[in-house]
Amino acid sequence: MMLRYFFLGAAGIAILSFLFAAWLYRFIKQLPASNETIASIGALIRDGANTFLKKEYFVLAKFAGAACLLIFLFLPTPVWRGSVINNLSMSLAYLAGTCISALAGKIGIFAATTANIKTAESAQTGIRNSFLAGFRGGAVMGLAVVGASLLGTVLVYAITRDGTALLGFSFGASSLALFAKAGGGIFTKTADISADLTGKVELGIPEDDPRNPAVIADNVGDNVGDVAGMGADLFDSHVASMAAALVLATALDASANRKINVIMVICYAALGLLSSLIGVGLARMNKNDNPTAALNFSTYVTTGIFCLLTAVATYLFDFEWRIWGASIIGLFVGVIIGIASDYFTNDLRKPVHLVAKASSAGPAFTILSGISYGFFSILPSMTGIAFSALIAYKLCEPLGSGYAMFGIAMAAVGMLSIVGMIISNDAYGPIVDNARGLAEMGNLGDDILRVTDELDSAGNTVKAVTKGFAIGAAGLTVIALLGAFLSEVNTAAAEHGLPGIDGFDIMNPSVFFGLLIGAAVPAIFSAMLMLGVDRNAQRMVDEIHRQFREIEGLSEGKPGVVPEYERCIEIATAGALRELVPAGLAAIAATIAVGFIGGVNAIGGFLTGNIVSGLLLALFMSNAGGLWDNAKKYIEAGAHGGKGSETHKAAVVGDTVGDPFKDTAGPSINTQITVVSLIASLLSVFFLLYSIF
Amino acid sequence: MMLRYFFLGAAGIAILSFLFAAWLYRFIKQLPASNETIASIGALIRDGANTFLKKEYFVLAKFAGAACLLIFLFLPTPVWRGSVINNLSMSLAYLAGTCISALAGKIGIFAATTANIKTAESAQTGIRNSFLAGFRGGAVMGLAVVGASLLGTVLVYAITRDGTALLGFSFGASSLALFAKAGGGIFTKTADISADLTGKVELGIPEDDPRNPAVIADNVGDNVGDVAGMGADLFDSHVASMAAALVLATALDASANRKINVIMVICYAALGLLSSLIGVGLARMNKNDNPTAALNFSTYVTTGIFCLLTAVATYLFDFEWRIWGASIIGLFVGVIIGIASDYFTNDLRKPVHLVAKASSAGPAFTILSGISYGFFSILPSMTGIAFSALIAYKLCEPLGSGYAMFGIAMAAVGMLSIVGMIISNDAYGPIVDNARGLAEMGNLGDDILRVTDELDSAGNTVKAVTKGFAIGAAGLTVIALLGAFLSEVNTAAAEHGLPGIDGFDIMNPSVFFGLLIGAAVPAIFSAMLMLGVDRNAQRMVDEIHRQFREIEGLSEGKPGVVPEYERCIEIATAGALRELVPAGLAAIAATIAVGFIGGVNAIGGFLTGNIVSGLLLALFMSNAGGLWDNAKKYIEAGAHGGKGSETHKAAVVGDTVGDPFKDTAGPSINTQITVVSLIASLLSVFFLLYSIF
Repeated sequence: MMLRYFFLGAAGIAILSFLFAAWLYRFIKQLPASNETIASIGALIRDGANTFLKKEYFVLAKFAGAACLLIFLFLPTPVWRGSVINNLSMSLAYLAGTCISALAGKIGIFAATTANIKTAESAQTGIRNSFLAGFRGGAVMGLAVVGASLLGTVLVYAITRDGTALLGFSFGASSLALFAKAGGGIFTKTADISADLTGKVELGIPEDDPRNPAVIADNVGDNVGDVAGMGADLFDSHVASMAAALVLATALDASANRKINVIMVICYAALGLLSSLIGVGLARMNKNDNPTAALNFSTYVTTGIFCLLTAVATYLFDFEWRIWGASIIGLFVGVIIGIASDYFTNDLRKPVHLVAKASSAGPAFTILSGISYGFFSILPSMTGIAFSALIAYKLCEPLGSGYAMFGIAMAAVGMLSIVGMIISNDAYGPIVDNARGLAEMGNLGDDILRVTDELDSAGNTVKAVTKGFAIGAAGLTVIALLGAFLSEVNTAAAEHGLPGIDGFDIMNPSVFFGLLIGAAVPAIFSAMLMLGVDRNAQRMVDEIHRQFREIEGLSEGKPGVVPEYERCIEIATAGALRELVPAGLAAIAATIAVGFIGGVNAIGGFLTGNIVSGLLLALFMSNAGGLWDNAKKYIEAGAHGGKGSETHKAAVVGDTVGDPFKDTAGPSINTQITVVSLIASLLSVFFLLYSIF
Repeated sequence: MMLRYFFLGAAGIAILSFLFAAWLYRFIKQLPASNETIASIGALIRDGANTFLKKEYFVLAKFAGAACLLIFLFLPTPVWRGSVINNLSMSLAYLAGTCISALAGKIGIFAATTANIKTAESAQTGIRNSFLAGFRGGAVMGLAVVGASLLGTVLVYAITRDGTALLGFSFGASSLALFAKAGGGIFTKTADISADLTGKVELGIPEDDPRNPAVIADNVGDNVGDVAGMGADLFDSHVASMAAALVLATALDASANRKINVIMVICYAALGLLSSLIGVGLARMNKNDNPTAALNFSTYVTTGIFCLLTAVATYLFDFEWRIWGASIIGLFVGVIIGIASDYFTNDLRKPVHLVAKASSAGPAFTILSGISYGFFSILPSMTGIAFSALIAYKLCEPLGSGYAMFGIAMAAVGMLSIVGMIISNDAYGPIVDNARGLAEMGNLGDDILRVTDELDSAGNTVKAVTKGFAIGAAGLTVIALLGAFLSEVNTAAAEHGLPGIDGFDIMNPSVFFGLLIGAAVPAIFSAMLMLGVDRNAQRMVDEIHRQFREIEGLSEGKPGVVPEYERCIEIATAGALRELVPAGLAAIAATIAVGFIGGVNAIGGFLTGNIVSGLLLALFMSNAGGLWDNAKKYIEAGAHGGKGSETHKAAVVGDTVGDPFKDTAGPSINTQITVVSLIASLLSVFFLLYSIF
């Protein structure tokens, strides 16, 4: 078997997915649009999102430039000691990772800010057309992102044939994702909370009312937070899972002088994208369908196709069936985590009803019960990840030394195989959310609003599922990265004539030291992001109050009077840019400090503590946030006194707390744990050679 | 050196502390009391607390009886295989642990429900006398509990000379503490939340107003939750720290055929109690002192005396100075954790002010900012524990194999050496809180209320500090218990001709599996307790509404009309008893399940995950709860609009959320991690022999 054919095949599938994404974009583009109000508001949203992205990327370019320089100087070995070519290729790989990640966000925004308008207008011709516009808008990003990550990974690996360079590529992707997710998350929740507080709570005007100066910023936020941010996040996890698997596969293949494991990783990743292509192509609402069912159906189809295609490939190319089993287990657990997240956040299920009921005793009980069910919600996911890692390991252990950890890495690859479909589903959410806002502001009438509301509600349910999935995928990936870190340490140790290490013993005090500090990091990181939202929202609320005070006729809704939407967008942008850097840098600085204090053992503990507490907090925050959001919606639909009741007010408090939980801190933790794992691997040689203890 | 002399010396100091406690009780008893209302309400509180304890102990006796039988049948080896004597002594040691723990709670309640009356009445003769009554009331329990734990530990060890029997004794103490802390915590917060919601919020009557049917239950709750529960908790940590150190010392001494390490443990523990005795004796308010300063001063005195006495002993008896260093580091870190908790919860500091300020934007911001600072607050404590464990280990490592872990155990012993003083400070809190209630209900007038308010405020500050201390102590103790577990596993392995294990490698999938599940347990445990409070408070609120509706003249305060206080006490009692068992059993069941699934490696990971996430959540919940409480008090003192403002209402929501955080779930996690660690050690042989993976 020639590895090169598989490179070409994977690249072919990636290009196919670009073509399909382009076709989908053309499909959306040709949909009719006639309402001028919608067009002009849509343009405002698009401009706001692009302005934010431009400013954000400008800040990040400085960071990436500095990191690129440092990488060139120091990685994989200090440039004055090793080869310039190696360092150059490492820094170029890093740069490629950041650029593709940025491009992915840009494409997502590009498609989403067209699709939102078309979804709103298509709603006039029925829910099935409207659904198709929303879903295909999301799929443009889904397919473009996953195509790019596959193509990028294959190219970097084909050129360098080196796992470490791939880690550099992956680090580029995830360092950008870290800041993009945090920045977008702060932007979106600043706008959302401020709009709700001043509009819904203080003035009693509906959501998306055009009088509210923050309403455009809120819609921009959906795009920059949920489209660009989530795209960057899943791009990062996808690359990291492939990188971890390829590092381990390269080591395994080198010792046996063959290439089958590398081929398997690339083949499976390519088949995952192919399955997503088919799944996306098949997604539509049939008669009597609801949109949630349509989204779920295409996810299950993708899953089934992946199982089938990989089984065929395993048979044809003589891959190990045990490793196939590990991948399928990973995929299966991803689905279980999704179902568990759905249970805890779906408004047809008990937890949402109980939190809604508890709200009748006041906001304190909304919070207490939401936190409690949020805590419960981590159990199925943590158990699922624990069992999948254990089973994948035990399944592949008989294949020989090193295969056990490779099994875990392939479980992560399996879980992330359907990521194209997942991103498409996820981006559907903010698009239909935007469409709802446009329908409201464009005065399309109650019938149309009912259609967009139904699409939006499906978006919320699916968002909780994809978030759980993203967290689980990051979890498995970083376990595999822990294996990659160990492998990097041992390679470095062999090069420097030092003894290697077998693992990280908890009874070693350096490991335990790292464990405790690593566990604290996600909490500190989340706290910094949440306080960022807090501070930023206070600034924006002040600005909204000012506008209502100073712009005559605004609060009464005098025709022709429009608020200064741009000011709110500017505040959200400036605040997000100011707040996004410290949290990410703190996590990176903690990793480096622990490495130089306690050495590679401390880092092993640090990564473990970081994974464990990161998973715990990310699952808790995402699910509790989703739960509060839907409890509020459940009450708004008429339960426990409905809109305007005291119970509803209590639920709104829960929702406001949940907003930065689920859309800022929770999902950013994924990226934080990936970034930290990659840094550790990249700097392993320094931690090995220079540490205090 | 004869070990026996040290046994006698330690027993002597324990008996001295009983005598001193008895003298303190006499001192309180002879203080004048004349107000009949206070006497009758005081009697109600005392009866309520005793009734609860009686019912709680009845439930726990059944549990303890069953556990005792199981221990007799299976531990240390199945009775049909090993020796009946060993199993009998193990089950008796367990029983002794439970009985002393129960007795400690009983004595605490006994002293506290006398001291509360005397503190209220002494306030009429000045704050200094009143302080002395409150502090000495708490010290009765402090000295009795620590005397009992020292005496019990020495007796069990002197009789059996066996570390495993000591683990049985410790398990008895902590299994009772687990349920006592959970039960008391549910009781107290049920009553507190219900009283606040119906009294302060709905009716606008002051705290401790005698019209409120829940007011007596609230005061009973302070006693059963904060006095009996906290006493049981620290008793348990103290015993566990000594047990872990003695298990390791016995193993070290056996290999060298000497007794110096065992002697050192006993000597240090005894000197800790002696230091606390002196510290308690010296505690008083001098002129111009405030009560917080007085409490802190005596803690620092105790710390200083302990350093001095142990240095003298180390010199005289030729102990290792490195181990002395480890103990002092533990003590020092305990103080740092206390200071950090104080910073995040003290109303003179920035976090409380910022949360109060955020509350002006509504309750959602109270919650978000409180959660954020709660997350921040874990950093100094986690870092402190991490560094102290690392330094203690490195300091003692040169002494030879096994000494490093012993160093960590001695750091825990050092930290807990001043526990007598800590419990005294802690029990002072609920006593002066009660005294404030009695002064209000006994109509002693505003001047007296000002005195009791000042004492109460000091109690709140000190409570946060002691809670942080208790969590830190449990953290270090369970790290040492992890060492004890490893030692037990290897002993068992040697007996069964199996290979021993060196440690727990994170890269071993069984360890990682355990790690993830272990980390989930404290979250689930907390959620169950919080939902227990939630459900129970809803029942009690219904009852209070019924009384206000049905008892004529109650809400208007018609003279002679009294509410049915007993009904509320009964509801709190019944609910607490119903809710306390499932959470504890779930934690125990998870341990056993993981042990039989993944074996000793999985348990090593499980304990580690449990410690890490337990510390994280316990610190977060305790500190966030204290922060919200004091932010509310800070606003009540006049900031941001003061009492009755919207800001105040938002702060009350924070306080209500914080109540079960800081007084139910947070501090119960300590005990949960200790219980789980002890069970793991006790069942190690079964996990070694019978497991699936």
